[in-house]
Amino acid sequence: MNTVGHLINGQITTAAKRTQDVFNPATGEVSRQVALATAQTVDCAIAAAEAAFPAWRDTPPIKRARVMFRFKELLEKNADTICQMIGEEHGKISHDAAGELQRGIENVEYACGIAELLKGEHSKNVGPNIDSWSEFQPLGVVAGITPFNFPVMVPLWMFPMAIASGNCFILKPSERDPSSTLFIAQLLQEAGLPNGVLNVVNGDKEAVDILLRDPRVQAVSFVGSTPVAEYIYSTATAHGKRCQALGGAKNHAIVMPDADMDNAVNQLLGAAFGSSGERCMALSVAVAVGDAAADALVEKMQAAMQNLKVGAYTDSKNDFGPVITRQHQQKVIGYIDSAEEQGATVVVDGRQPCVEGYENGFFVGGTLIDRVTPEMVSYKEEIFGPVLQVVRVNSMQEAMALIDNHEYGNGTCIFTRDGEAARYFSDNIKVGMVGINVPLPVPVAYHSFGGWKRSLFGDLHAYGPDAVRFYTRRKTVTQRWPSSGVREGVEFSMPTMK
Amino acid sequence: MNTVGHLINGQITTAAKRTQDVFNPATGEVSRQVALATAQTVDCAIAAAEAAFPAWRDTPPIKRARVMFRFKELLEKNADTICQMIGEEHGKISHDAAGELQRGIENVEYACGIAELLKGEHSKNVGPNIDSWSEFQPLGVVAGITPFNFPVMVPLWMFPMAIASGNCFILKPSERDPSSTLFIAQLLQEAGLPNGVLNVVNGDKEAVDILLRDPRVQAVSFVGSTPVAEYIYSTATAHGKRCQALGGAKNHAIVMPDADMDNAVNQLLGAAFGSSGERCMALSVAVAVGDAAADALVEKMQAAMQNLKVGAYTDSKNDFGPVITRQHQQKVIGYIDSAEEQGATVVVDGRQPCVEGYENGFFVGGTLIDRVTPEMVSYKEEIFGPVLQVVRVNSMQEAMALIDNHEYGNGTCIFTRDGEAARYFSDNIKVGMVGINVPLPVPVAYHSFGGWKRSLFGDLHAYGPDAVRFYTRRKTVTQRWPSSGVREGVEFSMPTMK
Amino acid sequence: MNTVGHLINGQITTAAKRTQDVFNPATGEVSRQVALATAQTVDCAIAAAEAAFPAWRDTPPIKRARVMFRFKELLEKNADTICQMIGEEHGKISHDAAGELQRGIENVEYACGIAELLKGEHSKNVGPNIDSWSEFQPLGVVAGITPFNFPVMVPLWMFPMAIASGNCFILKPSERDPSSTLFIAQLLQEAGLPNGVLNVVNGDKEAVDILLRDPRVQAVSFVGSTPVAEYIYSTATAHGKRCQALGGAKNHAIVMPDADMDNAVNQLLGAAFGSSGERCMALSVAVAVGDAAADALVEKMQAAMQNLKVGAYTDSKNDFGPVITRQHQQKVIGYIDSAEEQGATVVVDGRQPCVEGYENGFFVGGTLIDRVTPEMVSYKEEIFGPVLQVVRVNSMQEAMALIDNHEYGNGTCIFTRDGEAARYFSDNIKVGMVGINVPLPVPVAYHSFGGWKRSLFGDLHAYGPDAVRFYTRRKTVTQRWPSSGVREGVEFSMPTMK
Amino acid sequence: MNTVGHLINGQITTAAKRTQDVFNPATGEVSRQVALATAQTVDCAIAAAEAAFPAWRDTPPIKRARVMFRFKELLEKNADTICQMIGEEHGKISHDAAGELQRGIENVEYACGIAELLKGEHSKNVGPNIDSWSEFQPLGVVAGITPFNFPVMVPLWMFPMAIASGNCFILKPSERDPSSTLFIAQLLQEAGLPNGVLNVVNGDKEAVDILLRDPRVQAVSFVGSTPVAEYIYSTATAHGKRCQALGGAKNHAIVMPDADMDNAVNQLLGAAFGSSGERCMALSVAVAVGDAAADALVEKMQAAMQNLKVGAYTDSKNDFGPVITRQHQQKVIGYIDSAEEQGATVVVDGRQPCVEGYENGFFVGGTLIDRVTPEMVSYKEEIFGPVLQVVRVNSMQEAMALIDNHEYGNGTCIFTRDGEAARYFSDNIKVGMVGINVPLPVPVAYHSFGGWKRSLFGDLHAYGPDAVRFYTRRKTVTQRWPSSGVREGVEFSMPTMK
Repeated sequence: MNTVGHLINGQITTAAKRTQDVFNPATGEVSRQVALATAQTVDCAIAAAEAAFPAWRDTPPIKRARVMFRFKELLEKNADTICQMIGEEHGKISHDAAGELQRGIENVEYACGIAELLKGEHSKNVGPNIDSWSEFQPLGVVAGITPFNFPVMVPLWMFPMAIASGNCFILKPSERDPSSTLFIAQLLQEAGLPNGVLNVVNGDKEAVDILLRDPRVQAVSFVGSTPVAEYIYSTATAHGKRCQALGGAKNHAIVMPDADMDNAVNQLLGAAFGSSGERCMALSVAVAVGDAAADALVEKMQAAMQNLKVGAYTDSKNDFGPVITRQHQQKVIGYIDSAEEQGATVVVDGRQPCVEGYENGFFVGGTLIDRVTPEMVSYKEEIFGPVLQVVRVNSMQEAMALIDNHEYGNGTCIFTRDGEAARYFSDNIKVGMVGINVPLPVPVAYHSFGGWKRSLFGDLHAYGPDAVRFYTRRKTVTQRWPSSGVREGVEFSMPTMK
Repeated sequence: MNTVGHLINGQITTAAKRTQDVFNPATGEVSRQVALATAQTVDCAIAAAEAAFPAWRDTPPIKRARVMFRFKELLEKNADTICQMIGEEHGKISHDAAGELQRGIENVEYACGIAELLKGEHSKNVGPNIDSWSEFQPLGVVAGITPFNFPVMVPLWMFPMAIASGNCFILKPSERDPSSTLFIAQLLQEAGLPNGVLNVVNGDKEAVDILLRDPRVQAVSFVGSTPVAEYIYSTATAHGKRCQALGGAKNHAIVMPDADMDNAVNQLLGAAFGSSGERCMALSVAVAVGDAAADALVEKMQAAMQNLKVGAYTDSKNDFGPVITRQHQQKVIGYIDSAEEQGATVVVDGRQPCVEGYENGFFVGGTLIDRVTPEMVSYKEEIFGPVLQVVRVNSMQEAMALIDNHEYGNGTCIFTRDGEAARYFSDNIKVGMVGINVPLPVPVAYHSFGGWKRSLFGDLHAYGPDAVRFYTRRKTVTQRWPSSGVREGVEFSMPTMK
Repeated sequence: MNTVGHLINGQITTAAKRTQDVFNPATGEVSRQVALATAQTVDCAIAAAEAAFPAWRDTPPIKRARVMFRFKELLEKNADTICQMIGEEHGKISHDAAGELQRGIENVEYACGIAELLKGEHSKNVGPNIDSWSEFQPLGVVAGITPFNFPVMVPLWMFPMAIASGNCFILKPSERDPSSTLFIAQLLQEAGLPNGVLNVVNGDKEAVDILLRDPRVQAVSFVGSTPVAEYIYSTATAHGKRCQALGGAKNHAIVMPDADMDNAVNQLLGAAFGSSGERCMALSVAVAVGDAAADALVEKMQAAMQNLKVGAYTDSKNDFGPVITRQHQQKVIGYIDSAEEQGATVVVDGRQPCVEGYENGFFVGGTLIDRVTPEMVSYKEEIFGPVLQVVRVNSMQEAMALIDNHEYGNGTCIFTRDGEAARYFSDNIKVGMVGINVPLPVPVAYHSFGGWKRSLFGDLHAYGPDAVRFYTRRKTVTQRWPSSGVREGVEFSMPTMK
Repeated sequence: MNTVGHLINGQITTAAKRTQDVFNPATGEVSRQVALATAQTVDCAIAAAEAAFPAWRDTPPIKRARVMFRFKELLEKNADTICQMIGEEHGKISHDAAGELQRGIENVEYACGIAELLKGEHSKNVGPNIDSWSEFQPLGVVAGITPFNFPVMVPLWMFPMAIASGNCFILKPSERDPSSTLFIAQLLQEAGLPNGVLNVVNGDKEAVDILLRDPRVQAVSFVGSTPVAEYIYSTATAHGKRCQALGGAKNHAIVMPDADMDNAVNQLLGAAFGSSGERCMALSVAVAVGDAAADALVEKMQAAMQNLKVGAYTDSKNDFGPVITRQHQQKVIGYIDSAEEQGATVVVDGRQPCVEGYENGFFVGGTLIDRVTPEMVSYKEEIFGPVLQVVRVNSMQEAMALIDNHEYGNGTCIFTRDGEAARYFSDNIKVGMVGINVPLPVPVAYHSFGGWKRSLFGDLHAYGPDAVRFYTRRKTVTQRWPSSGVREGVEFSMPTMK
């Protein structure tokens, strides 16, 4: 059985004292091992990155961009391989993996424009004959720690922009599904990236803690759960680093009485169950305003869910696949149980999914729960599974209060046809990413991704324009040239001739 | 004896369990008391700010800007009063106080342009008929903690931009010289700021710690010494806040052999001794490249220093005044002693300044120390007094290594006439603010202020464009309007008539 | 009777071979004369501007901004005087004049931020050790030609941004109402503008033609009617200048069946009749979608118009005043006649207004015409009077086709509550300034003003960010410093000593 | 013999009433014919572009960008073919053609970032609950007219940005060397561009005049000589279009006494003789400050020119090739004759070049002329051949006056090591593109290209950020949503229950 290793200074190494099983979640079987980095391995990666930095920082941005142009070509050329790797270890169906990859590629496309994005501000005559300008210089060695649910997309949120900005990068991907991540890192090497500019270390908390503490690491980007995000943020900052740590979510959709209900149901279906709900932007709570809207929503949703297909990634007709681990499967089922126990109505029950030929897979079927209330555990916590909960309220104000009072503030959405309702909602709601009739309002690559409240710790959002600021340091130069006589002094005609 | 109080919800209050002496550093006498806020007082301020927030955030930016326009007028009209207050408690000479005020006003001028600065990014057709835009919304209640050395300017780095951006602000100024700070806050009230939008609490660590921990406070800006900055940054971030904490400095000027030496000496004089060296941008180390340059520099500097006048703020012919406290005076003298003991040459000795009529003032005279080396305590630490140290090196590379190896990276400068040397220096030096023949490269208000290394903790610099980003949160809205028949459905002619 | 003169090089001069009557349009009487510039006078102005340019261009932008800060203060302090001057010569009521002035001041406020707005783009390492940046340098002498209908606002669209950008300006205001324009120019002098930076020449086509042809004039801004705009644009460009020429308008409001009709009527009232309809953004055509909407609109509008008060500027209870001249009054009445003759229904007839005590004033009462069709002359041409015409259509598509087929494309508006209709409209309509439930969508000062089609000739819009680009020229510098040995060569230790 | 045709609506057509010879300038032989478009052909192209516009404008920018990503790949893949086509018809050596292509590709790379570049400005609360934003919408059908000297690069300055911005484009390339231009247009089709979005019409003044007059054409970009640029600008603008017309140049390099002379000579060699001097950025005048500098320059240049190789494009060891036509060859020689006659010294004489095997080619050898004065015809006019003229002056001020007094203001350069001289020069010189020790200061693709004075007519420069503004129209939307009860009205609990 092969072992997924590290990429350090352009070389793959699998040397490890410890390894961990990597499962195929559709079959429940171990497919390979992943090496867990020791402190020494992480140290090597940091050293390689630091050594590569001076030359990479001095490489003109347009040349760094051209590595990204080639990287995009290679990602597109190898799309099938990448999607297969994602399916095998994460379980998501090929069309979903293709969507993930495409969203990732869009960040590479954005990084191709780095020369424009790095432009500094230039001011003539801040004082008499004094000029001043601000440059945005790369930080040096920076690190990224990424979650299992998007093994390709979330790393691509980070390293293309960090590297295009002139930094050297150490990626610690999820140890659950490491293969596709490592593979795309190798593609970037193939695209012409110098050794040491991107390093991948597989590992667990041991590796992470070194990255958070080593003084050579200047900044840390993280995506994962809120408790870990909080740990990452407070630890990295306590060691003087800049840090952006993206955490959990509980994304609500308000369904207004004037909404086009068929459209809303159709949108919610994908947003709630796609990728088994293992997305930080999954829409897991529908807040129906008025019982009429709620009844219609539940009825139509129940009907639509009959056609949902759960199964293995190999069959592209499936809508979604298993969750990531046996433990997680049990946790999701536990949330459904608790909702039922606390008085909610399980309208569609996915606790006993039947996936023929994959009886040992980590599957949970699409689940719809009605009459959920804010006190329930299943409402308070992030389920991260294919479970849509319906909360019934009497007014839009009540719906908004619900959202604003929740711990998380990642994404939210409203279904309405009314301009005023939409504007009031998007203006006032305390959530970072807002959809108007768009259930998954993930910003495109040329905007930036970030939640509010306990969904994000830090000042700057992920990818897009904010990534340039996060991965660079402002340097402001103020310049005055005293006369040195070169200009005025040069007078070659004979003085007496004048 | 009167007591300097707090400004809370538009009212001055002096109620306090504890007070602290405020000195006139030129005479050494206590001039008044300052109230030290209790936890309850800080809580009142936070509550007032929180209550004022909803209306202030909804006030159109151009109307918020107009409060700043009036504030600028009032600051200019009251300039003499403000400068006198600064002189009385801080000790700086009126022309220096006027310079501080002017630099502060420039930040108010910048805040007048907030409507332009708050513009978000708008993208049509991020997908078919889907639009997306990013807004920059205010955070809510934010806090600033400011040092004694610029009682007017540093607060003006913070609250005008924070407030113009739509936030409510709590300022905890230095308890050493609180009067001018409180006075300008009152002027902002007079300019039309609603009650509660700006609150001033005087106090010490007790007040600070509440600001760092209260969950209603969203962000903290700090300027002070590095150990405190580090404490502020790690504490505020551990409580989930965004934070920018600006710390100490040790600003070096490289004097190249091709520099215009008269000009360099003239510039260094003000940069080293202005405001008694109590500036985080003070130039405290001159690195002379080559003994010829060093000898010329020391000789000319020694001569020039004969004309330096130290004295009380009341006489505008004085060049600089006392340091802030008796303890600080002794500390500065201690650094001079230690340099001498460790082998440096005290060329001009300010340890026994004679200021007639002010024998009890906290004065230190202008001091020049030659042949300082990197091992000396006086080199390693920030002196924050009127002391210029000369280090002699053999090459520009050696000079740059010296700077890069120092803990701090606030400001630096090179004196040269050579384009290539200047560009190499500004490109590579690990310092945030770089001067080319400009000894105090403080960025103008429309750029941003920030050091590198242990001179700044956080991602975003102070004032200028970065302030907009620090005091706002990005919200990205993605919008699609499903057809609701309003547009297409309206057809009123009788069908059969066609 | 006094004569309104020119402002040249800081001095008022009334010398003129020809003068022209200035009327009080409320009384129909001549109140003063205006001097008409000869070629020589214009030449003096250009010469003064050219002489003032080198010093003004080298004045740091922040100092130029401070003149604008003081100018804003003076405009506010002298508001009553300015409004009175406007009323006396233009006839608009004081509240309307105050609105004009306020809109003008907003452009001065924007010009206060010029230091930010002038920032160039700086790129490090466009090649190895090669940097490049773009500066925006002022053009030199530029000219503005402005219309009678906004004697204060339209000049303030132009010269504050032009001057703050570093140019010297020659303003040729309308000879119909020259006093307020000249007065604000004097206030700018008082604010500290150096002589020659702003010059005002009153005059007619003779003066204009010199400005369009003199090679020292680099750029021309114009606001007026389309035929003149076209002449200005083709003449100025044929002489190699850059030019922006804003022309006429025919602004339509679509009233959708789902609109809040009371609100729409209320908005239309001000937008159609305010300032007697003598605004290039006046809403002169209401396009009602469906007869039900049309009937409701006409009925409610007719009722509302009973309360419209037309009269002299001196009574602030009046809603609007006279039109500018006797000829123009007759022209407006002629359009109403022609509509009636061509089959439209004059619902409210303002052809015989009775304004007690002002029987000789140039008044036209508020007029509402229903069942107007696209073939009518009154539809095709710009009336520039207090006349609202209603066109009835059967669909939104038909309404939009009407707008798109009209020669002009300045402003337009839709009244609806539907998000989709609004988005489709604003996306597709061929008009430069679009309102959603906003009848007069004049962009705020920090956006830019400009129509499409034959309402604007040129690339860049007026005021706002576009003004910076119009009044400056891009200069791109590319810089490489060859080593000159200053950096590397400096090595003073004896080689053998190492 | 084959005929180069047009690309209209995705199809190649060679139908033409007239054709013109295309020469191989190295042999002097006709290699093929080019079809000259009739009015009808141009009309077809305009109609095709207009028909393609609605769908292309509505294609999301990121999808338009992806066509450019593929275009870049295809250009790189077909580089050899393209360079051969350039060589065959223009005569430039393969390495020079490769440089031209690479510079062109950089504009395609910039167009890949169009989604970022098209971002509009969004303002919340321009008034209470009123938002406003500016969009940059494509113009529709736009045209480009390009010169013979860069048959690939100059078209790539124009159509990638115009098309990525959502416009449809009609290119009228030079009829001297049409093949490579047509070929790259076909590659863009192959990259996935819909038919009609890019059309190429070969032709002469007849075709041009239609493009300048047809009301469906919204904007015209031109690069060529100044008399034609002026005609294009005045004609297009007289027909109401926006226009940018780039004309001729006379680019001076100041050689200061402190310059590194070997470096300067080396740089000048390529800048003066590369591409036979047929570049609008060719450095054709060296202004030596002081006779010492002049003598050194002439001596070293004369020596260096011994190694210049002129010959056919097929031999990559050649430095440059023939000029474009027999007539142009004679014109260049005529300029050298006239300089000699007017008293200048022809130091290196290229009038009788011997290119073995290519005796009928249109060659002119590298020519150096010393002691040229401003009165000479060869100084006043653009030679556009491999001729470097040296003017001797006594001071930098004199050198700058020379440049500022010349009709053209395209590019210029200074060779110096002195920071102050460089800054004074770049600040004050009246030229649009300035090099500091960079002899060909062509801005990179992410800045913009444009001269001053009679080198450019129009407001906005070519390619880079200015191209976005030139090829789009600002639309400003102002939006207020009146309450429609959807938000507040929804209250479903029984009223009596409250």
